[in-house]
Amino acid sequence: MSDEKYFQNITTRERAIFEGAITMGALFHQFVGTPVDRDTAPSLEKAMEQSLTLQPCINSVEVKIDRETLENAGNEYQYLSLTGDMLDVKVTSEFEGVKVVVRMHYIEELQYPLMYVEEVDSSDH
Amino acid sequence: MSDEKYFQNITTRERAIFEGAITMGALFHQFVGTPVDRDTAPSLEKAMEQSLTLQPCINSVEVKIDRETLENAGNEYQYLSLTGDMLDVKVTSEFEGVKVVVRMHYIEELQYPLMYVEEVDSSDH
Amino acid sequence: MSDEKYFQNITTRERAIFEGAITMGALFHQFVGTPVDRDTAPSLEKAMEQSLTLQPCINSVEVKIDRETLENAGNEYQYLSLTGDMLDVKVTSEFEGVKVVVRMHYIEELQYPLMYVEEVDSSDH
Amino acid sequence: MSDEKYFQNITTRERAIFEGAITMGALFHQFVGTPVDRDTAPSLEKAMEQSLTLQPCINSVEVKIDRETLENAGNEYQYLSLTGDMLDVKVTSEFEGVKVVVRMHYIEELQYPLMYVEEVDSSDH
Repeated sequence: MSDEKYFQNITTRERAIFEGAITMGALFHQFVGTPVDRDTAPSLEKAMEQSLTLQPCINSVEVKIDRETLENAGNEYQYLSLTGDMLDVKVTSEFEGVKVVVRMHYIEELQYPLMYVEEVDSSDH
Repeated sequence: MSDEKYFQNITTRERAIFEGAITMGALFHQFVGTPVDRDTAPSLEKAMEQSLTLQPCINSVEVKIDRETLENAGNEYQYLSLTGDMLDVKVTSEFEGVKVVVRMHYIEELQYPLMYVEEVDSSDH
Repeated sequence: MSDEKYFQNITTRERAIFEGAITMGALFHQFVGTPVDRDTAPSLEKAMEQSLTLQPCINSVEVKIDRETLENAGNEYQYLSLTGDMLDVKVTSEFEGVKVVVRMHYIEELQYPLMYVEEVDSSDH
Repeated sequence: MSDEKYFQNITTRERAIFEGAITMGALFHQFVGTPVDRDTAPSLEKAMEQSLTLQPCINSVEVKIDRETLENAGNEYQYLSLTGDMLDVKVTSEFEGVKVVVRMHYIEELQYPLMYVEEVDSSDH
């Protein structure tokens, strides 16, 4: 059984963009709020990467949680709740040879962790 | 300050698809797990719709939580944790006149709540 | 079928505290990350209240999202991701006549949204 | 700066129960919905354990995601969204020498993943 009949109305490029974007939105809203400090950041990054790579058409996911923010946690409890501002994420999706990199990171001038298409590569074709 | 320089490498259509897809992924992973029954489903649907409509380029979000599933909650506590299988969602995104409807609903033959592009409409242009 | 055999080893007071605490932890981690602005805050508050009131032994949930923080959203997109620091929540749990109020709000001197037991009331007994 | 003034009205035992319960509610609602299969289950378990152990008064967290359920994923995409029914979790909290084990696992006769206090141990005192 296949899902291809649901994707007749979009191009190969659009499909790759679509799947990368879903995964980025999913990652943000699944994991924001998780308690994190310097020692636990590596296991959280790994779980975020591995779990989101399972989604359709996803080749790889790279997650970096900003260590500087974690070190400066000024509260009594020495850990923070994960926020979008601490994240730098690259999701690489691929559909029929078209690779797309969707990126999210905090953009100073927008004061916002922006999600955008960093790269579209169909050079192999 | 504007984000347009980050979107130079994709088309208007692709941008609309990109933003609709992010919002669908976000909706699923933000709200799955929420306790819900027949009486609380309307307020949860409304909150999901209003909060996700805030995201960039989103015109509207329609959420239907399956009432039949909720009625059949067989456990002691008479409510369920929201799952993707109970959801039928339409996200309408728009960028520079191109409207896209991203849909998610459970597809029997895939045994999976599929997210796909239901409609791309640039007829106004 | 009943769950009472699982709660033989704790007192009535402890059970009320236990259930209130679960619900507070649940509320925080379910909804943190949700997009919110001044216009959508009321529907989000209502959904949070209604959905968490479904949990075992919960009488009521009151949620206030700080409007001042929302008004000061300085970014391009005019909305924020919900954080614990914006929340003031009261969860009232009750078990066999013992009422407990679990509260969470941002405590300036701790720089942290603290969850604690604000009230235990078994005066009716 | 300390939070102890907020906990004057509950006993040592109640405090340990309170903190264990918060962490169990948090764990469930943070991670339910995460994509998971047999290969990614170990990294997800580890991240859940490490991140929730950061919370106040938590000694350890043990998470087991049911492998049998993951193997039987019948859909096209070969992974599932994490649900409460797949989880067996032990949270050990401790406050001033009183240790509490809060447990959650699926109870067949309740058709529900029940959270309860499995053990209260103040034998060291």
